[in-house]
Amino acid sequence: MKALVYNGSRDVTVKDVPDARIEQPTDVLVRITTTNICGSDLHMYEGRTDLEPGMVLGHENMGEVVEVGSGVTRTQVGDMVCLPFNIGCGFCRNCEDGLTGYCLTVNPDPNMAGAAYGFAGMGPFWGGQAELLRVPFGDFNCLRLPDDAREKENDYVMLSDIFPTGWHCTRLADMRAGDSMVVYGAGPVGLMAAYSAMIQGASQVMVVDRHPDRLKLAEQIGAIAVDDSKGDPVEQVLELTRGKGADKGCECVGYQAHDPQGTEDAAMTMNNLVKSVRFTGHIGVVGIFLPQDPGAPDELARNGKIAFDQGLAWFKGQKIGNGQANVKAYNRQLRDLIHMGRATPSWIVSHELPLSQAPEAYRNFDARDEGWTKVLLKPGMTA
Amino acid sequence: MKALVYNGSRDVTVKDVPDARIEQPTDVLVRITTTNICGSDLHMYEGRTDLEPGMVLGHENMGEVVEVGSGVTRTQVGDMVCLPFNIGCGFCRNCEDGLTGYCLTVNPDPNMAGAAYGFAGMGPFWGGQAELLRVPFGDFNCLRLPDDAREKENDYVMLSDIFPTGWHCTRLADMRAGDSMVVYGAGPVGLMAAYSAMIQGASQVMVVDRHPDRLKLAEQIGAIAVDDSKGDPVEQVLELTRGKGADKGCECVGYQAHDPQGTEDAAMTMNNLVKSVRFTGHIGVVGIFLPQDPGAPDELARNGKIAFDQGLAWFKGQKIGNGQANVKAYNRQLRDLIHMGRATPSWIVSHELPLSQAPEAYRNFDARDEGWTKVLLKPGMTA
Amino acid sequence: MKALVYNGSRDVTVKDVPDARIEQPTDVLVRITTTNICGSDLHMYEGRTDLEPGMVLGHENMGEVVEVGSGVTRTQVGDMVCLPFNIGCGFCRNCEDGLTGYCLTVNPDPNMAGAAYGFAGMGPFWGGQAELLRVPFGDFNCLRLPDDAREKENDYVMLSDIFPTGWHCTRLADMRAGDSMVVYGAGPVGLMAAYSAMIQGASQVMVVDRHPDRLKLAEQIGAIAVDDSKGDPVEQVLELTRGKGADKGCECVGYQAHDPQGTEDAAMTMNNLVKSVRFTGHIGVVGIFLPQDPGAPDELARNGKIAFDQGLAWFKGQKIGNGQANVKAYNRQLRDLIHMGRATPSWIVSHELPLSQAPEAYRNFDARDEGWTKVLLKPGMTA
Amino acid sequence: MKALVYNGSRDVTVKDVPDARIEQPTDVLVRITTTNICGSDLHMYEGRTDLEPGMVLGHENMGEVVEVGSGVTRTQVGDMVCLPFNIGCGFCRNCEDGLTGYCLTVNPDPNMAGAAYGFAGMGPFWGGQAELLRVPFGDFNCLRLPDDAREKENDYVMLSDIFPTGWHCTRLADMRAGDSMVVYGAGPVGLMAAYSAMIQGASQVMVVDRHPDRLKLAEQIGAIAVDDSKGDPVEQVLELTRGKGADKGCECVGYQAHDPQGTEDAAMTMNNLVKSVRFTGHIGVVGIFLPQDPGAPDELARNGKIAFDQGLAWFKGQKIGNGQANVKAYNRQLRDLIHMGRATPSWIVSHELPLSQAPEAYRNFDARDEGWTKVLLKPGMTA
Repeated sequence: MKALVYNGSRDVTVKDVPDARIEQPTDVLVRITTTNICGSDLHMYEGRTDLEPGMVLGHENMGEVVEVGSGVTRTQVGDMVCLPFNIGCGFCRNCEDGLTGYCLTVNPDPNMAGAAYGFAGMGPFWGGQAELLRVPFGDFNCLRLPDDAREKENDYVMLSDIFPTGWHCTRLADMRAGDSMVVYGAGPVGLMAAYSAMIQGASQVMVVDRHPDRLKLAEQIGAIAVDDSKGDPVEQVLELTRGKGADKGCECVGYQAHDPQGTEDAAMTMNNLVKSVRFTGHIGVVGIFLPQDPGAPDELARNGKIAFDQGLAWFKGQKIGNGQANVKAYNRQLRDLIHMGRATPSWIVSHELPLSQAPEAYRNFDARDEGWTKVLLKPGMTA
Repeated sequence: MKALVYNGSRDVTVKDVPDARIEQPTDVLVRITTTNICGSDLHMYEGRTDLEPGMVLGHENMGEVVEVGSGVTRTQVGDMVCLPFNIGCGFCRNCEDGLTGYCLTVNPDPNMAGAAYGFAGMGPFWGGQAELLRVPFGDFNCLRLPDDAREKENDYVMLSDIFPTGWHCTRLADMRAGDSMVVYGAGPVGLMAAYSAMIQGASQVMVVDRHPDRLKLAEQIGAIAVDDSKGDPVEQVLELTRGKGADKGCECVGYQAHDPQGTEDAAMTMNNLVKSVRFTGHIGVVGIFLPQDPGAPDELARNGKIAFDQGLAWFKGQKIGNGQANVKAYNRQLRDLIHMGRATPSWIVSHELPLSQAPEAYRNFDARDEGWTKVLLKPGMTA
Repeated sequence: MKALVYNGSRDVTVKDVPDARIEQPTDVLVRITTTNICGSDLHMYEGRTDLEPGMVLGHENMGEVVEVGSGVTRTQVGDMVCLPFNIGCGFCRNCEDGLTGYCLTVNPDPNMAGAAYGFAGMGPFWGGQAELLRVPFGDFNCLRLPDDAREKENDYVMLSDIFPTGWHCTRLADMRAGDSMVVYGAGPVGLMAAYSAMIQGASQVMVVDRHPDRLKLAEQIGAIAVDDSKGDPVEQVLELTRGKGADKGCECVGYQAHDPQGTEDAAMTMNNLVKSVRFTGHIGVVGIFLPQDPGAPDELARNGKIAFDQGLAWFKGQKIGNGQANVKAYNRQLRDLIHMGRATPSWIVSHELPLSQAPEAYRNFDARDEGWTKVLLKPGMTA
Repeated sequence: MKALVYNGSRDVTVKDVPDARIEQPTDVLVRITTTNICGSDLHMYEGRTDLEPGMVLGHENMGEVVEVGSGVTRTQVGDMVCLPFNIGCGFCRNCEDGLTGYCLTVNPDPNMAGAAYGFAGMGPFWGGQAELLRVPFGDFNCLRLPDDAREKENDYVMLSDIFPTGWHCTRLADMRAGDSMVVYGAGPVGLMAAYSAMIQGASQVMVVDRHPDRLKLAEQIGAIAVDDSKGDPVEQVLELTRGKGADKGCECVGYQAHDPQGTEDAAMTMNNLVKSVRFTGHIGVVGIFLPQDPGAPDELARNGKIAFDQGLAWFKGQKIGNGQANVKAYNRQLRDLIHMGRATPSWIVSHELPLSQAPEAYRNFDARDEGWTKVLLKPGMTA
């Protein structure tokens, strides 16, 4: 089959690899119809992880079931399904608690919790930027889609990662209807966090970023754009909230946070959130932070640490929730919102391309070229 | 009236001051029968805060109502009451949400949330290490005690602070029955956190400290003592939990954390907790951290920051809850547990002294003299 | 002052009564600017309660503060405020738990929990269908409104009862974003429940009723109208939910439920809900049920009992939450939604009338005259 | 293999039947070491269900894994496991939400939710009162036990049903530490509800029954025995709670409730609970109620209905949670409590018998013979 293979830093190619296939009785095999490029793919693309050459990338996948193992009960050939980026077993303690992002079974590393497709450190599972994808524990991991799956494909594919990830951030922040919310970062995940907040009845959603195209997308869903290149974002947020700060906050940037001048400071958004969120407020953190980051600019960051404003966070009585989304905790309900016409997360899609054009798309996306917000690859599309 | 007055660093005296009295229609006046010395009193005693000389200390208070204002409805002269250390109004947004530690009304500083008796930065309210105490918003702040109030006085007085504070820590950590719990710090608050965990059905409670007398008190309630002077506490906790880490953790030390050799490191317990608690676990933090600490040993700490292991905390998907206890959120239910004989927090009391001996007690307690675990002052006791 | 006084069954008049005034130091006096007629006023109007003649009706009130007692701290003369229909003290166990509808202090009957203005069995407090209203525990009960209070008066006045009551029903039903919801009853409260569900991100809201004007109002906010005069509502709901039933349900009718032919059956909506809601679903019940109803058609109903389908409810593992709304639990966040332009509950208002026309309005509303959906009385309006 | 087979009303025999065996790749085969007789077995034994002759009874099972299917990943031959009475698939919406008692996959009846071993209406799955048991979806349904499995076998076997069922009742009642709790029914489930309440820190647990041996067992764990043959239980509960009623209540009797004189009234315990529980209290209901009960004494009951005090329940603002326990939601944490020595539910065991004596045990248990509280069958025991 054709697949997008990682060869090394900033070097990916589409080439023939052995077909993905059923390996275990509980596996499902999916022909990919849409697979997105994610911001976290860029960490690997840029060579800042220990990903080994030869890996097939792609963890935002959807497609049609073409084969099922003998131990598969529910999923059937012909089903249109969307796959959570995290792979769970369904029976470990964390999966049972709905914490499928921290599955204790699937990742072969016994000191790790959590597995994913085509992801450094998350097990040997090939990604879906390919024609076929093997889905372990298929009954547990396949989200079946209704009969408008093809028609709303660009919406449904967002259920694989960024829509649930944005939603998760609002849940980590314990957002409730009527709350004001500040989101740091207007990339695809930040925009989805803002969108999730709107859907759940936030009274006011502020999105901090500096890219005009992204801020414009935020405004399209009724959020307030806060341009941090035009002044201290904390002060802007305080002004918008009568000096109190937002009720809740979302971190959607992660360890590569940098100021408008480009200086990297992994603590920047976290400390700004502590200041931007009111006494007793909650902060959700889905931007990625890493336990080690050998390429980081300073000693603290190399050890995964940040100079965190614990004194102020404690003083304000804030709660902080961290970590990747447990996609399965949300993907059913978000699917239903899409199906009933109450959510259309595809509004951020900027490009739909055949798989063959993936290398070029990686280049453009990595360069943060204007307008390259979200790229969808369609393995079945002819170039 | 007689009161314990702060004169300056390590200088307190019992002397005559003007009687506390009803100042507002909603005030209640209480004759103090028991008032404790708290570990946080020592921060002020040691002169590491901006407390002004002349303040009467004491925020763990209980006594008998001797007068009520014209706007007081429920509380009656003769009632035995215990007073939460935090003073709430009962009608601001935070008080209504049960976040009485962050009242938006009582503290005259408009940029602050929260007030307390005899406490630096928490408003001008005199403490209760005195014969009389003025209680603002008396109906809201007085917890009425049942007819065994005198008999169980040493238990009930714990409702003013440390029992609810320890309990709060387990709630911040979202402890559930069956969980394993690790508590860093076996001071009075840490012991109460451990006790709270036991009462709520923890399967296993580990308490990390190095003082033999404190570790012994932990063992008396069925907790497992972890002596960090005998080896890395993280490794000990991992060993006790089959390598997984505890389900939940409690920070009951705060910014003056130091290793067994005495080297202060404000990040130490926090980072140990991140390592000691399992993937997806929660951590409650009631040990005090300050936004500024001018007397701290290094630049980070002086600005209230710590070198926090955000990478690992994010990677493990942990949640962290910070801040002082909202005493009123728990004091009724804990009172009922005491009344029904299901809780006896007085097991940690080491000394009961007349108010006149308070200066001496401060000296001993500040020196961490062996056996000075918890001191109760009894203004009505004759020396 | 002028006030709408209950004289007896279907007999109300607007006449001069002694001015409402400050009676306790914690009272606030409000000049009413808008006061609504509520469906529950009709129970009293129709003489099916033990309300004594001479009572001033009206529990949906808003206005301007004209005087405050000496024990009032926050509320100030000139504030525009909206008053929850239930009166709480702010310091009893229930008020502290946010259950202000079940205050243990305000109602002088020691066997009762809960008090209200102008309401049978809820204490001696005069209602607000008058020029002035005395508000006990004013700081606790007055919701201050922002500077658009006059401009959005018809929205804000809904915070006194029906908007929070509809919202409460969705909370009793534990509605979550993405859920499907069925609401029985499209009166003002049912419409507000449907509206609340939409704001919180329901994927599908179905409203069961038979009055075309009400069903049309439901459709205006995106809900699906289910006309029970055109067929079994249970079957219609099952059809709309692929045979599964709705995720959650709301009962907004109460004990006077009757079929399209007018036969009263207090169990009808409850049992229909049990059938309309899926296995493990939740049902909120804000429609009023009474412990005694001497005028009821049968023995069971006279004793406040219904022939309830407990077998099916148990078998399906359903949860049921009952009771009047604790208005203060929601009115801040709903105020913020109105203020930020995210909610406009005034869409159901059909009439704005001067107080003098109240008797006529009662007649029309009681007759369920077409188009009399919601009547707002404006004491300051000249006829 | 030997198994206890249902032949018809009050007729069970132990005889040879075909061995249970692996039928699906995801199955696990268990050699039963302990299997209990449950009160709900008696409904079937007495012939009041539509159970077909030939069924093997037994849904409280534990044993050793002797074979696993090709699609089983975690469970291994030799593991000691306890099986939840309800059989879940692990991937349907309800299982994912932790509602494994309402699995949408396992029961072949498409209008049903939930499956169980050896149970009328819960699918064709043979029970475990036999030498071998087939466990569908074995990885999901097998709870692995630690190395003290044999030593604490009589405790661990309670994880199959009654300990989690009693615990579930306290969760449905939303019990919190410090609450007072009233439990109606001191059968094995009621005793486990009381025990669960104690473990979670109830301040006061009252158990209503009339059998002296059961009330004595309640007192052994610190509960207060309320003998309803000695006076109205509601009045006794009110007296024990200063007239307020218990904070929370548990229904552990079900549709065959009857008064001390033996008159059956399915509404009795429910209505007593509404009266025994305070305003705003919650009630959990795990006693079984059936949608149809053809053998019931009156018309209402035959249709699964009860004359429920909805008026009073609504007026008091109570919440009611119904249904069978989702065993997997609790069995890990309860296992940990047993393992760590914090729970020993075996205190209620009255008999340990070989499987061959099962028919006799059924007779004694059905006759409610004094002292036959809980019978454990040991297929490996020689008579």
